Amino acid sequence: MMFRCKEYQKHDNLVSSVTTKMKGVAVTNDDIWDRILLDAADHSALSQGKDSFFVVTKAVVTKNQKQGKCEEGPDSGTICSSDEDCTKEYTNPKSNGVLTGQCITFNSSSVKTCEVFAWCPIEGTRDAPKSAIFGSAKNVTVFIKNNIGFLNFNYKTRNILPWMNDTYLQNCTFNQTTDPYCPKFRLGDIVKAAGEDFTEMAVEGGVIAIQINWECNLDWLLHKCVPEYSFRRLDEKNSNKTLFPGLNLRFARYYKQTGVEERTLFKVYGIRFDVMVTGKAGKFNTIKMFTYIGSTLSYFGLAIFVVDFLLTTYIPRCGCKKEVKSYYTEKKYEAVEDQTEVRTGYQCCYIEVNEKRLAGGPHWLT
Amino acid sequence: MMFRCKEYQKHDNLVSSVTTKMKGVAVTNDDIWDRILLDAADHSALSQGKDSFFVVTKAVVTKNQKQGKCEEGPDSGTICSSDEDCTKEYTNPKSNGVLTGQCITFNSSSVKTCEVFAWCPIEGTRDAPKSAIFGSAKNVTVFIKNNIGFLNFNYKTRNILPWMNDTYLQNCTFNQTTDPYCPKFRLGDIVKAAGEDFTEMAVEGGVIAIQINWECNLDWLLHKCVPEYSFRRLDEKNSNKTLFPGLNLRFARYYKQTGVEERTLFKVYGIRFDVMVTGKAGKFNTIKMFTYIGSTLSYFGLAIFVVDFLLTTYIPRCGCKKEVKSYYTEKKYEAVEDQTEVRTGYQCCYIEVNEKRLAGGPHWLT
Amino acid sequence: MMFRCKEYQKHDNLVSSVTTKMKGVAVTNDDIWDRILLDAADHSALSQGKDSFFVVTKAVVTKNQKQGKCEEGPDSGTICSSDEDCTKEYTNPKSNGVLTGQCITFNSSSVKTCEVFAWCPIEGTRDAPKSAIFGSAKNVTVFIKNNIGFLNFNYKTRNILPWMNDTYLQNCTFNQTTDPYCPKFRLGDIVKAAGEDFTEMAVEGGVIAIQINWECNLDWLLHKCVPEYSFRRLDEKNSNKTLFPGLNLRFARYYKQTGVEERTLFKVYGIRFDVMVTGKAGKFNTIKMFTYIGSTLSYFGLAIFVVDFLLTTYIPRCGCKKEVKSYYTEKKYEAVEDQTEVRTGYQCCYIEVNEKRLAGGPHWLT
Repeated sequence: MMFRCKEYQKHDNLVSSVTTKMKGVAVTNDDIWDRILLDAADHSALSQGKDSFFVVTKAVVTKNQKQGKCEEGPDSGTICSSDEDCTKEYTNPKSNGVLTGQCITFNSSSVKTCEVFAWCPIEGTRDAPKSAIFGSAKNVTVFIKNNIGFLNFNYKTRNILPWMNDTYLQNCTFNQTTDPYCPKFRLGDIVKAAGEDFTEMAVEGGVIAIQINWECNLDWLLHKCVPEYSFRRLDEKNSNKTLFPGLNLRFARYYKQTGVEERTLFKVYGIRFDVMVTGKAGKFNTIKMFTYIGSTLSYFGLAIFVVDFLLTTYIPRCGCKKEVKSYYTEKKYEAVEDQTEVRTGYQCCYIEVNEKRLAGGPHWLT
Repeated sequence: MMFRCKEYQKHDNLVSSVTTKMKGVAVTNDDIWDRILLDAADHSALSQGKDSFFVVTKAVVTKNQKQGKCEEGPDSGTICSSDEDCTKEYTNPKSNGVLTGQCITFNSSSVKTCEVFAWCPIEGTRDAPKSAIFGSAKNVTVFIKNNIGFLNFNYKTRNILPWMNDTYLQNCTFNQTTDPYCPKFRLGDIVKAAGEDFTEMAVEGGVIAIQINWECNLDWLLHKCVPEYSFRRLDEKNSNKTLFPGLNLRFARYYKQTGVEERTLFKVYGIRFDVMVTGKAGKFNTIKMFTYIGSTLSYFGLAIFVVDFLLTTYIPRCGCKKEVKSYYTEKKYEAVEDQTEVRTGYQCCYIEVNEKRLAGGPHWLT
Repeated sequence: MMFRCKEYQKHDNLVSSVTTKMKGVAVTNDDIWDRILLDAADHSALSQGKDSFFVVTKAVVTKNQKQGKCEEGPDSGTICSSDEDCTKEYTNPKSNGVLTGQCITFNSSSVKTCEVFAWCPIEGTRDAPKSAIFGSAKNVTVFIKNNIGFLNFNYKTRNILPWMNDTYLQNCTFNQTTDPYCPKFRLGDIVKAAGEDFTEMAVEGGVIAIQINWECNLDWLLHKCVPEYSFRRLDEKNSNKTLFPGLNLRFARYYKQTGVEERTLFKVYGIRFDVMVTGKAGKFNTIKMFTYIGSTLSYFGLAIFVVDFLLTTYIPRCGCKKEVKSYYTEKKYEAVEDQTEVRTGYQCCYIEVNEKRLAGGPHWLT
């Protein structure tokens, strides 16, 4: 029982390093307006951290924006009837610029909005915004390299396992049942494994966790240390109550053709994948076993009886009395809380006791 | 007492996902040189992580830099009197380029500096650097979406609470006293809540933490799980002893007008906001209660008396003796440390016990 | 023993903020093709998080890519003999674009590959890719500012220590033996301290951790709180079994010269430095000492004897009986696990006890 539960194993925190590499392209369908293609280089600028990557699934593009003056969009809270409604130099959080103090006609309609100094034209004011889905994004693959270390055990390993050769790595694709250790993932598969539909999720974007869990047994006999991958959606699927559903972000490419700066604005919807690494390593730990037995015994009120019995019966046979003291001294150190340091060096009596227990019989626990 | 302290609740780690969205513009005042406007798209490139965002509060701009040869600035440790002082191909950390081996006149003054191959002209060497404050940055708002999960409890929630509708979300602004749950924050308010002055902090920049703390009681009766927001400045305010006070960073926009690459260099000072999520969920946990009582009793030396009394008096009445053993077996597993796994399956006596306890009276522990 | 092990100190988690600032340039050697120079502004776009920075050590540059149609590279799994091998609109993860349905001659050789819609020409298809090493990258320095706080102790500090003045900070460079507190690091030194060779690591890149460990004793008498720096390589050095050895990433600079967008593609190899902050603060904690003594006693079966003795002999002398109860009540709260909250208010007996203990003698527990 005790061994099955790994109660007697010392646990340790984890040091982890993740690098990710996307392969493949996200491209809009052929039949829609200007085709957009985003490859790994385009995507790398959108990464939001070393344990995270982002794939674009939808985009709204506004070309040829220049800094200057133009009419604000009517949804920005700046509809006006006269210049007095437009306080010069005022900015509000919904606005895309700073008010110039003028109230002007919005896009040759009957609506008037405040003029702003901004990147002009404002997104969506001149033409109806055109959005396009990047269907091929689900075929993009990502190669995740994860190196971990359990520092106290001086143990390092990684998710590229010893038996994986180049041919395997080049051709494998992760699959929960048939290939659960391949570190190359098709994005569509990840989304599916998280219980979501890629096409549905592509519309508004979202966040998905790629969890890598290391449950390692570093004992000599039962050694095992392999990653376990799982996937879950982190944000709220049901978006009808969210002001900003899913996940989208804006970025721009800046150009100068004839001395004047201009930019192309991209509003991109997409899926952010967060790699989360957790882990626990265990190794047989005598100190904890004793503490554990001690606390259990004391609960039952049997402590006195057992300690008396052991001290009077077994210890004298052990032949290493001076270790006994050092053992108890050490035990104090570890008894109260899970310290990360470990001491060794009280083998003798420990083995004696242990063997007795393994041999069973009425002597050892009472 | 025990219940007030939640000693008997099982605790669990947190999985969290944060997305942030800035609205509004940072713009320099009208009366200073070339007006600069930075909107959400410009800012998104400056984000340093998925839980972090950056707002520019001051900028120094150097236009039209090209890769080539020019004089180094005199503060770079490369003041020279002859070519011999300028070792060809040498780079030092303070320098902006690699030495060409020439010692040339700095900016038609009497000072001579080593010539470098670098992005030329070097920032601040041709004209005195002009910096401008982005006053409107304090009116920028950020919408923070935070989804959390307590996996062991299979419980998910988010900071957009069930009662919030679209109208509320569109119009609310966080306020510690009047609106402590609105997930939309005005940057000026955050800085103020952290005890700092925005205008003062804008000059050199800094780092502010937005802490979201979830203290959740997942018991059926006392259910509560809402976020609590707090703010603090993370870096040192008093900068007079810091070589690099506050926070600034450099970025560039690259252009090609006639085949030659050039760039505009921005040195921007600003405030980085780090969103930090912490949390704890609790649920009534019988195992821990027993452990707790046990350890308390043993401290007082009453363990023997109580256990004797119980074993001889109450257990026989329970009518489910075989569960008792399995209960103790399970208890061993959880007694020593706060494992994240939970076992179930010792309902009989446990429910018996529970009901007895709730009913009060002397039977409570059995 | 107890005091040496700091068993009696309350421990606390850490809030940390890191900002980094690179100085210096990475530049290719003079004699190789077009010289490339990357300075701090160029590098800042490559940062993958607020606790992380990246230095380029090798680059492969592909200039003048435009979105259009061209032949795919032969290593992309798209070698074909006729158009039928090239399914229109198909994308595979190894491909750099989407197939047009044509099978065309690859680079005037006898090999034919599928034509793709992509950023053309594909990297490495027209000319043999030319790569260049940035030797000076090892002289780049980074200034790391780390502010930490132990919130429960209401204690803040930072890695710029009180005795450091501007002159020191401007001129110092970290050195494990001669200058172990200087917060300015030469990248070459970091790599060396991690046991790696910079020139060797530059070829394929990698990940190195900069660990900052704070072991703080916040007791009044023994106050000490300084950072300890250590360095280790996080990824696998031996790359012969890795499909994607080391660390490389792609980024692009976008231009428009005459209305058509083009880009320069950079495949850069480099070293990512991850700053990891850990820490522990301790302060003398009477509650824990009692718990500790209690649990030790009960293990030896001496609890009854000692408690009896104390209760009958010493407590009556204490003269603050009503505090005794409150002390035990409080103790319950802290006994079972390491809570982060702390209660105070049982001064009387506690001080009594404490003084007795410090004075030594047989009265030590009272």
